[in-house]
Order: sequence, then structure tokens, then C-alpha cells
Amino acid sequence: MVAHVKPATCEDSQHVGATLNSLETPCLVLDETRMARNIARLRTRLQRRGVQFRPHLKTAKSVEVAQRLMDGPNGPIAVSTLQEAEIFARSGVRDILYAVGIAPHRLDRVVALRSRGADVAIVLDSVQQASAVVAKVRETGHAIPVLIEVDCDGHRGGLQLDDPALLEVGRILHKGQATLRGVMTHAGESYKCVGAEALEAAAEEERSTSFACAEALRANGLPCPVVSVGSTPTAHFARNLAGVTEMRAGVFVFFDLVMTGIGVCSIEDVALSVLCTVIGHQHARGWILVDAGWTALSLDRGTETQAVDQGYGIVCDLEGTPYPDFIIAQTNQEHGIAALRPGSSARLPDLPVGARLRVLPIHACATGAQHDQYHVIAEGSLVVRDIWSRFKGW
Amino acid sequence: MVAHVKPATCEDSQHVGATLNSLETPCLVLDETRMARNIARLRTRLQRRGVQFRPHLKTAKSVEVAQRLMDGPNGPIAVSTLQEAEIFARSGVRDILYAVGIAPHRLDRVVALRSRGADVAIVLDSVQQASAVVAKVRETGHAIPVLIEVDCDGHRGGLQLDDPALLEVGRILHKGQATLRGVMTHAGESYKCVGAEALEAAAEEERSTSFACAEALRANGLPCPVVSVGSTPTAHFARNLAGVTEMRAGVFVFFDLVMTGIGVCSIEDVALSVLCTVIGHQHARGWILVDAGWTALSLDRGTETQAVDQGYGIVCDLEGTPYPDFIIAQTNQEHGIAALRPGSSARLPDLPVGARLRVLPIHACATGAQHDQYHVIAEGSLVVRDIWSRFKGW
Repeated sequence: MVAHVKPATCEDSQHVGATLNSLETPCLVLDETRMARNIARLRTRLQRRGVQFRPHLKTAKSVEVAQRLMDGPNGPIAVSTLQEAEIFARSGVRDILYAVGIAPHRLDRVVALRSRGADVAIVLDSVQQASAVVAKVRETGHAIPVLIEVDCDGHRGGLQLDDPALLEVGRILHKGQATLRGVMTHAGESYKCVGAEALEAAAEEERSTSFACAEALRANGLPCPVVSVGSTPTAHFARNLAGVTEMRAGVFVFFDLVMTGIGVCSIEDVALSVLCTVIGHQHARGWILVDAGWTALSLDRGTETQAVDQGYGIVCDLEGTPYPDFIIAQTNQEHGIAALRPGSSARLPDLPVGARLRVLPIHACATGAQHDQYHVIAEGSLVVRDIWSRFKGW
Repeated sequence: MVAHVKPATCEDSQHVGATLNSLETPCLVLDETRMARNIARLRTRLQRRGVQFRPHLKTAKSVEVAQRLMDGPNGPIAVSTLQEAEIFARSGVRDILYAVGIAPHRLDRVVALRSRGADVAIVLDSVQQASAVVAKVRETGHAIPVLIEVDCDGHRGGLQLDDPALLEVGRILHKGQATLRGVMTHAGESYKCVGAEALEAAAEEERSTSFACAEALRANGLPCPVVSVGSTPTAHFARNLAGVTEMRAGVFVFFDLVMTGIGVCSIEDVALSVLCTVIGHQHARGWILVDAGWTALSLDRGTETQAVDQGYGIVCDLEGTPYPDFIIAQTNQEHGIAALRPGSSARLPDLPVGARLRVLPIHACATGAQHDQYHVIAEGSLVVRDIWSRFKGW
């Protein structure tokens, strides 16, 4: 006797109306209520300060999330890849900042996007890149808009205020009939801050540096209408935004344990989790094995240097309530080892094989990037109300 | 004047016959010559020892790579997800070991696969899982084949020889008319060994533990035809395989810097690399920024605790020759920061914006998992001779 059995594949079980108890695992769960609260919080904050909000869609990589993040169907948005720009442009977004330093070979894709009606702007921080842009402007007749990347905290790319290349780049672009749209910076080091005072200082550094660079360009007769700053921590802690025209932020839409650790949000704001299933135990070692390894959680260890190391994520019950001191301590490709935090006096939860858990992400961008779909729920509900695609690649 | 420009999207540039100079970046490059050598090396070694080779396809997740790894079109293979089992079964593979502890809700997918003619075996290490399997055998009439997972080194899952559950699980399965096919173990701790002596000891521990568990089952009248062991390090260093019937290994097909660091391969054996483009400089800090961040390289830091920390990968020129002491020191989502190893007296290579580089992976499984395609080249060639898909998910 061979009975008919269902579900026969993973896809069969992942559908709107399913509950978190019946989904195949691991999979990504998005609490839309929390997400909406996170969006409203930042939008309200920026509206009060009169600064344009340009959400960074590298975290979400989803048309449905974008629709909820954007001020309107045209954007504005920031993206980290031209694939994002192409997908969001196809969905109708027009005002797009590609916020990673331009590689000259990618200018053809930028021009192709602009030919199709998307106002794609690029960033750069060198004479060599500016010269390549100007050559492309000459070749194609497209006055590609450019923001000069400036460096406020030594995090990554960008020119410093006292670097003569700042004005040189501005002059090359302006003379070469590119559209010199402004300056941009990203306070990436703010991820290493803790507490309001440090975060406010990082935000002020971001503002004052970018504003000073903009003023330097203007003082030399160069246009600089846009002063674009942003990171999730500084967006939430900036007190003074004088001279800033727009704010970018990405990870805030979902939040995560790195953001919790630096004090930007609470654990109850984290909207993303990975649903998983208990697949084994090592009782003597105090381990509970789950089917969420690094393919599902990512290898991000962003809390390792914070006051509380959350391993690869905090383990919650199916409803999303954290167990005390219970984290994913180790990961292999398809195994997560859940254990109590070292030194904890909490009791290991009694979870048989087959029990369902949810793991809060260390870094929402990295965990999200491991998945193709969001299983959308309302806060406190176990029912999948929607399934949204997310994309990846370049 | 608006000229027609190409390529307009990423896909346009990624085609067979393109050179590494013209591909969109970042992308994954597979040196098929090196891969073939890695496969031949292990296959020859195991043939000499009379042990069946069961390649683990969790690393490659590619039908084309599988065809080159398998003894024949039927397999055997090991997989880490049922998605892999389903895809390889559709491509004609029949002998499949799903080598991650079974979650009871997944048994329906296992039975569905078996109904379609694939001989899918599962692993488990608890009375609870065994009872669930027996219930499914009763329900469906499928005598699901099972390997009992045993623990040789405290790495992850598995029962120990002296755990009474070993025999209890065996009896439940056998009495319940599941097919008790044998035992399996994985010497995962061998990834932390260094040098031949330690690796040989890990291999002997793997062999002797699994053989002892098999003998314990047999001594109690239980069948145990299969003794399945494996990890890339132990597969390459086992001296004695008495009692072992099959060997599993996965990462050896591409090798990586973790394997180089523990002495299983040399850098010249690493068949996988990430092609990327220089997008900026921070001259004062000795940084060269590339467009391969953690989305392209993964966040694996597996060499962090080794004698030589390779950061997020060794940077090579376009031909694949490493620059001295030049590694990816930091990553963000779409940025890699290449720099000299701390304390190095080497000279930072002179690489303008737009220069092409290749980065050798820390962990081939993790880096591969970030990509959807292999761009296949012959050793020493820059021409893409083939493009193979790879999949991900569950």
C-alpha cells in the first residue's frame, strides 16, 4: 500500500493562508505590523525635520516592501546594485540613486536605464571615474547625474574635505556636462557606536562633513543642490540636519540585533525572523539542533564585539517571544546549534524534534539575502497573509 | 544625440565565449581544469582503498558539476536539503543520501521522492525521529531506508557508542519495517586540524567510531550494511578504512582557503574564485575598494583562527595568480576592501578603477551559495567556455 502524500515539494507548503506551523523550514517571516511601525517612526521623524527620505532598498530587495517604504510610486530610493535599479525601474520607480562607487564599465547600464526614463544618479570619488563619466556623457548625450562621495568617518570610500580631488572632480564633471547633483556620505562607523550620545555625534559628523564639502563646491562656483547622508543609526539620532537635503536608511525597515545592541531599536521592533524546526539534541552538551544553518541565517557575527553577543541570532518561540538567553551559538551549512548563552542560569527550553522556532537576525540585510521570499504575517498572528518575492544578484 | 548602448543589463554580458574582461561583476568563476584534477585525486585515492565514493553535492548544487563528480548517472550522492534531492532526482540520480537529521514533517517529501523512483535514504539520531519514521512506513508502505547518525568528535549531531539509544533506535526502525541501512558520521572537527598527523587521527576516529557502532548493531542482530563516513579532510588523509563502506566529501571539488590552511590542498588547487572590479581607492589607508562585498564573497571567516588569516579571501590578478599578502580585509554588502596583510612588507599593487581581479574563497560552500551561475573556464584561459546554473533554497 503506497498512500498519496502531500506536500511533495517545498513549494506546495508555502502558500498564503498557511500557518507558521505548516510552512516548510527554514523560511523567512516578515512581521508587517512591526515593519509598518518602523517605517512610520522614521518617516515621521524626517518629516518633522523637513528632510527628504530616500529609503535604501538593499535590505529589502522587494517591490512590495518598496511600495510601503516610498513616499510615492516614483521614489525616491537608493540602491546598491544596478539589478535593483533595473527591477525597481521596471516597477515604475523613477528617482534612483545607485549608491556604490561607479565602475566605468557599468555606465552603459546606467545610460540604458536613463534611456528608459529612470532618473538614475551615480556616485564616485575619483578623477578617473569622473573622466570616464564625462567621456560617456560625450558619447551618449546623457547628462548623467553624479553625487560626489565624501568621507565622514573613515569607514569606506569617499573624498575628504581637504583633498584637492574634491574640487577637481567637481570641475571635471561640471565642465564635462555631467549633472553635478551634489555630495553624499554614509556614516558606516555609526554601526560601532553605542548609546544616544555617540550616535548623535556620528550623525553630526555626517552632517557637518557633507555640508562642508557641499559649501566648498558652491564656493568655487560649482552646483551642489543635493546633500545626501544616511545610515540607520544616524537617521534615528541626528538632532541637527541643517544643510542636509535627504536622508538614506535601509536596515531600519526590519531592524535586527546589531541595531538593538547599539540602542537604535528594541527587540520588539525586529520585524524579520527565520522560521525553523528542531531536528535533534545533544543533551549532554545542552544543544538543540535546528534546520537553520548559515544558508538560512547568514554568517553575520555583527554582535560579536557588542556588549551582548547574540551568536547567530536570538531563538524565539513560534509567536516570536524570545526564550531567555537562548541563542544560535554555532552554524553549519544546514544546521544551527541552539544553546544557552555562556554563564546563563536560564533553563534550556524543552523542545522536541519537530518543534517550531523563530530566530531573530543579527543583520537583516545579510539574513534577508539568503532567501527568495518573505512570508508576511501580522504581529501576533501565525497565518501567512502574503508572500512577497525578493531578488538577489547584480 | 542619444546613442544605442550595450550591454544594457547584467545578463547581456554573461555569455559563453565572453572573456573575464567583459563579464559583469561580481560573478563566480570555476576553473574546470582544477576541478577535474581535484575530483581525479580523491576518486583515485578511494578506488585504491576499495571504498565507494559518495560526493556531497551541497557545495556545488549544480547538475553539471554533479555529472562530473558521480561514478555514474545514478549516483551515489549525498545532499544537505530535500531541494537538492528533488533536483538531482529529476536529473536522473537515483541513489541519494539526505545527510541532515530528518524533521518528521519532511518525511512526506522523502516518500514522494521514493514514489518517483529515487532511492532516498535519511539520517536520524533519536527515538523520537525513529518512531516518526516507523509511523510513516506504516502509513505509506514505503520501507524508508535509514542511517543512524553517530558522533565521532562532538561536532554536531549523532549518538555515541555507549548511548543505549543507539540500539533502541536500531530496534525501533528494524522492527517497524524501515530499512535499517547502516550508520553514518561526519568528522566536522577535522576542519580545525592542522597537518597530516592530526588529520590522520581525525580520520581514524571517524572510522573507528562508526565501525564500532556498526558492530554494536550487528552484534545485537540488527542489519548494518553501510558504514558511511566523510569530510574533505578525512577523505584525503584516512590511512585505514577497514570496515568503512563509503566516503562522503563535498568541498574538495573546488577546495578553498580553509582547506589550504589545514594542509589538505595548495592554493593552486582552488578552483573557485569571484571575479570583481576595482571601484575606488583610499590611498592614505592603503585600501583598494572592489565591487565584491559579502553578497559575493560570503561572510565566512574560517581562516580567522588559522595560522594565516586570509580575511575574506586572497586577491589574485585576472589570470588567478595571487598578489603577495593582498587580501580582502573587510566587506560591506557590495564593497570589499582589499589591503595588504597587517605587517606585510609587500607593495600594494597598482590597480586603477576598472581593473579586474579574482578573489579566492575562504569557504567554497559559503561563497558558492551567494551565486546563481558558474562561469566555467579552463586553467590559464580567460574565455568562458560554459555557464552552469547553481540553485539554492530548501
